[in-house]
Amino acid sequence: MASKVGFALFGMGNMGLLHARNTVLSPRASLNWIIRNRLEDAQKFVKDLNLNARCTTPDRLEEVYSDPEVHATLICSPSSTHNKIIQDSLHAGKAVFCEKPVTIAEDSTRKCYELAESRNLPLFCAFHRPFDPSFRNVYDRIKSGELGRVRLIKVTSRDLSLPPISYLKTSGGIIADSTVHDLNYVLWIAGSRPKTIYVQGMNFDPELASIPDMDQVLVTIKHENGTLSLIDNGRLAAYGYDQRLEVLCEEGLLSVGNRSSDHVTEAGHHVTREPRIHSHFTTRYDQAYSNELEHFLDVLEGKSELLVTKDDTIETMRLIRACKLSIETGSPVEFDEMS
Amino acid sequence: MASKVGFALFGMGNMGLLHARNTVLSPRASLNWIIRNRLEDAQKFVKDLNLNARCTTPDRLEEVYSDPEVHATLICSPSSTHNKIIQDSLHAGKAVFCEKPVTIAEDSTRKCYELAESRNLPLFCAFHRPFDPSFRNVYDRIKSGELGRVRLIKVTSRDLSLPPISYLKTSGGIIADSTVHDLNYVLWIAGSRPKTIYVQGMNFDPELASIPDMDQVLVTIKHENGTLSLIDNGRLAAYGYDQRLEVLCEEGLLSVGNRSSDHVTEAGHHVTREPRIHSHFTTRYDQAYSNELEHFLDVLEGKSELLVTKDDTIETMRLIRACKLSIETGSPVEFDEMS
Amino acid sequence: MASKVGFALFGMGNMGLLHARNTVLSPRASLNWIIRNRLEDAQKFVKDLNLNARCTTPDRLEEVYSDPEVHATLICSPSSTHNKIIQDSLHAGKAVFCEKPVTIAEDSTRKCYELAESRNLPLFCAFHRPFDPSFRNVYDRIKSGELGRVRLIKVTSRDLSLPPISYLKTSGGIIADSTVHDLNYVLWIAGSRPKTIYVQGMNFDPELASIPDMDQVLVTIKHENGTLSLIDNGRLAAYGYDQRLEVLCEEGLLSVGNRSSDHVTEAGHHVTREPRIHSHFTTRYDQAYSNELEHFLDVLEGKSELLVTKDDTIETMRLIRACKLSIETGSPVEFDEMS
Amino acid sequence: MASKVGFALFGMGNMGLLHARNTVLSPRASLNWIIRNRLEDAQKFVKDLNLNARCTTPDRLEEVYSDPEVHATLICSPSSTHNKIIQDSLHAGKAVFCEKPVTIAEDSTRKCYELAESRNLPLFCAFHRPFDPSFRNVYDRIKSGELGRVRLIKVTSRDLSLPPISYLKTSGGIIADSTVHDLNYVLWIAGSRPKTIYVQGMNFDPELASIPDMDQVLVTIKHENGTLSLIDNGRLAAYGYDQRLEVLCEEGLLSVGNRSSDHVTEAGHHVTREPRIHSHFTTRYDQAYSNELEHFLDVLEGKSELLVTKDDTIETMRLIRACKLSIETGSPVEFDEMS
Repeated sequence: MASKVGFALFGMGNMGLLHARNTVLSPRASLNWIIRNRLEDAQKFVKDLNLNARCTTPDRLEEVYSDPEVHATLICSPSSTHNKIIQDSLHAGKAVFCEKPVTIAEDSTRKCYELAESRNLPLFCAFHRPFDPSFRNVYDRIKSGELGRVRLIKVTSRDLSLPPISYLKTSGGIIADSTVHDLNYVLWIAGSRPKTIYVQGMNFDPELASIPDMDQVLVTIKHENGTLSLIDNGRLAAYGYDQRLEVLCEEGLLSVGNRSSDHVTEAGHHVTREPRIHSHFTTRYDQAYSNELEHFLDVLEGKSELLVTKDDTIETMRLIRACKLSIETGSPVEFDEMS
Repeated sequence: MASKVGFALFGMGNMGLLHARNTVLSPRASLNWIIRNRLEDAQKFVKDLNLNARCTTPDRLEEVYSDPEVHATLICSPSSTHNKIIQDSLHAGKAVFCEKPVTIAEDSTRKCYELAESRNLPLFCAFHRPFDPSFRNVYDRIKSGELGRVRLIKVTSRDLSLPPISYLKTSGGIIADSTVHDLNYVLWIAGSRPKTIYVQGMNFDPELASIPDMDQVLVTIKHENGTLSLIDNGRLAAYGYDQRLEVLCEEGLLSVGNRSSDHVTEAGHHVTREPRIHSHFTTRYDQAYSNELEHFLDVLEGKSELLVTKDDTIETMRLIRACKLSIETGSPVEFDEMS
Repeated sequence: MASKVGFALFGMGNMGLLHARNTVLSPRASLNWIIRNRLEDAQKFVKDLNLNARCTTPDRLEEVYSDPEVHATLICSPSSTHNKIIQDSLHAGKAVFCEKPVTIAEDSTRKCYELAESRNLPLFCAFHRPFDPSFRNVYDRIKSGELGRVRLIKVTSRDLSLPPISYLKTSGGIIADSTVHDLNYVLWIAGSRPKTIYVQGMNFDPELASIPDMDQVLVTIKHENGTLSLIDNGRLAAYGYDQRLEVLCEEGLLSVGNRSSDHVTEAGHHVTREPRIHSHFTTRYDQAYSNELEHFLDVLEGKSELLVTKDDTIETMRLIRACKLSIETGSPVEFDEMS
Repeated sequence: MASKVGFALFGMGNMGLLHARNTVLSPRASLNWIIRNRLEDAQKFVKDLNLNARCTTPDRLEEVYSDPEVHATLICSPSSTHNKIIQDSLHAGKAVFCEKPVTIAEDSTRKCYELAESRNLPLFCAFHRPFDPSFRNVYDRIKSGELGRVRLIKVTSRDLSLPPISYLKTSGGIIADSTVHDLNYVLWIAGSRPKTIYVQGMNFDPELASIPDMDQVLVTIKHENGTLSLIDNGRLAAYGYDQRLEVLCEEGLLSVGNRSSDHVTEAGHHVTREPRIHSHFTTRYDQAYSNELEHFLDVLEGKSELLVTKDDTIETMRLIRACKLSIETGSPVEFDEMS
């Protein structure tokens, strides 16, 4: 047991469940605590999988933070709870694996990172895109330089269907809630700071006007080195969870296509039916979530540097701000002229 | 012979040659004259194909215009010559099939159309995209309404390689020379006037800075009905002449993919080689060029209305102007606020 | 615990490891014992995953068979050991989940099934093909009758590379070792007994001549209802583990394509690189292995009948025999004329 | 005119029409005569395309054969007429371009070739497969040796729908009428004589039993060098004219896929619609027909040897005979043991 990394998991939603299962299957990790308001969810999970883990509620955490077998917290609870859990974790000497966003404000995010630095503990913001084998492969090929200079990065990112309006009202808007993943990926792969950002969008669903929010945005970025980025992010795509990428380089084009859930084609008199693509991030990015955990374990073992750094997270937050400003003003925003 | 439409062809470049061959193969058309500065090109073509056509030079056209067996002129000569040929043709009672642009200015274009109207003769501006079977099929499916409201139109349009700088210097810039096809198609398919236009771009080839011109542009259009359009048009794509389209509708996605020149795949130890796509518009759009001619013949026989109208052409020219203005100002342009 | 099915797992090779992990993750199953000659493999697995399971060696099984919390054995040990483990399991009142083959002879296989029937315990032979989502989907669509009568079933099944000669010498030959999966699937999907079987093949690797064995076979089957089947099974395919299917019906074609391990395409000056397909059955059929376990649990809970029946297994074994006979004689074999 | 090859075309069916148009468009060829029972078909074609060609009927050929501007005959008339036209052409000093089969019997075919040799005139049997860009590309790559030894050649060849029974009754059976193209291609690409041939098939359409004929056959060939070939040829495929190929080599797989008639994909809630493939050989193999003519002109100009030789044609006819014998006897046939 001594050689395994013990985790305390906060939250048992989609992401909590995914990380819990990956923790169970990893020989290097052990799931020691699950913290959940609805304690019975946590208890059922522990029973179903015959685990040795203990369960508690968010108001009774002393035993968790003082447990010497807990080496890290794994935060999948609501965004508003992150700041306190991160600080408490770091103060208790625990490393932190946190679903995005680290916190909901740039200031507090910066402070969390500074605390982590001062404690010499890793704070990992789990953006999934860099850990997907295909998106990572594109990054590696671009960094190798074999295809020459990057001219254009085009991200297509569409959900199957609009979430409930009740969710959208507290989501912070499409940019912060959804486009954030695309912005983070584009920053990472461009390897150059944003210079000019312009967002055009539309609220096709009339209910969105009152929030206000949009359900389709086009984000155009010109980077300092001349590279252009274009993100097409939307909340509705009848055919599935559409996650594609193109990177046009001087010597060729790299593309990431969709994953399908089976491999059956039917060719008939009038139509050919192709396999459906995945409909949800939980199945589309399953490998990414597993890779995130392994990466975090590598970092804890000193085998790897954090792939998502403080700067990546902060710049992504600034880019969210630039996009919102462009929407408000209807004009392009100069990244360096923002406060 | 009386039932065949006689053509006088101006120009024997790529497009002239294509239309000449289509005219020969169409049972409804006959190629009666070829006008070419280098007379020997025209004469060789006539001899090679055993034709009855006559050849002349642009300075000796009286016999052409007065030939009662010439029902139409087919203009593939340089853009600067169009205006005069169109006017002379219409005055001589000939219908006009003209490669884009009709003329190089909005005013003169408008006057050509007005002259055609007053003479009750068709003036056809041969934008190829609407006549390609795939792009046309998308238009038909959208107009049928089966997929619901159009949310987003995305055009990808990339040449294989940068034309010579000498050509680019007189080309009028990427927007008027190349993006024009995409703008025309987007207008046609959106079925709604442009409201706001924003162009971001880059000159990756340093020689372009001095013209000045760009070799990669991203055009974002918001239409009056809320539809968004995004054109990615570039001058370089190592892998071929990349001509793709996506139209995201409420009920699904329509896509046009590239055509390949063969159908051989090779799967080896390390890579899978897919067929190459076409490298040039002459082979990619071969069917479109043939369909343009048949459409023009249908119009002459009263079986069809002109698919590319005066308004389509004029609005496309205004859209070119809006794009150029956005590039100059670095700001979005309101279509209706332009003079 | 009472509601979970307890398993004793025999063997920790590729398949043992896969089933062990699936057992751990299934809320309905619990892994109680691992039996392994190299006890330390089993112990490491138990320790790595923090399990409550016990480990023992194949010569000390009394405690396993008498453990009331063991409801089923899961047999992944060498084929030669299956017969005894199955009989001991059934005599001890345990259900049996067994990797193919049940036993290496038709007679003993039949006896195992008869014992299972007399004990009223399920004996499940884990052919993976019917549990793969794509291959199963094809079966369901065919049985629905929507595509009409089946004319032709074509299976392509190729390993990445020839196994070591040492393995091949004891493998029983390509038909029994490898083609067996294709024969089983074809029988299942044709829904009609084989009438005439013909095998043509070749030993491209010269070392195979001395065994003797082949590394590429073509099996042609005409079924009693007129359906034709064609299996192309080989030991070498430079590009990966090639697992495809076509079923030609009166009203259309159903195809199963390969799964790729990522989704990145690279289009360059000279070639387009497509994603590589999986290279091994452990990753290609990962979902099938998980589905097999869930199916077995369904059978134990009375929710489902065994999908792979005694007759399926015995007919598959007879078909192996028919193929071998055709190879020996160079002639087609009549299935019903075999002893 | 002196430098152009003058053709006399026999027949104006599908193939006659195709070759006529290609002749018109080729700068090296001229269409001088069309011979057709229904003279008006020929006359209409000549009038529609403004040609200088003359028309006549098959009973008035003296002027054709004695015309010094006719350098070659192009035979697209019914198979039963080929023998006489070929002989008359060769005796008149004309080269011969003949649709398959040269004649309907091995003996007369051999004699036609011998006559051509004695007259030193090319006799070209127009099998289309070697002239299709994709199938030719595969041949070239295999002959280059880059992929190593050929293990398996798999041809899929299916018509859209069963021809009328009236046609089938005089067609000579599926092997001679349809599989012949696949047999010819396989022979060409294998580069090794057939050793053992086995055919299994079925008459799914009950009307075929009375002819008797089959509408689906599987031909297995083992060549002398060990290469295996498998032809799947059928008369019905709801989804189109299915023409595919796989060649498995030691170092990789070459595949030829189908051509589609447009490039539009529709992804909706329930299905994805892919472009339809071509439905007929006239459009699928249009490039091949044009290439055949250019090849024949190259041969006449001494730039190329005949790609389809006397031996290719005779061996293909023997292979047809072997297939028929296997169907009759139900047994494999040894190619060298046939009379």
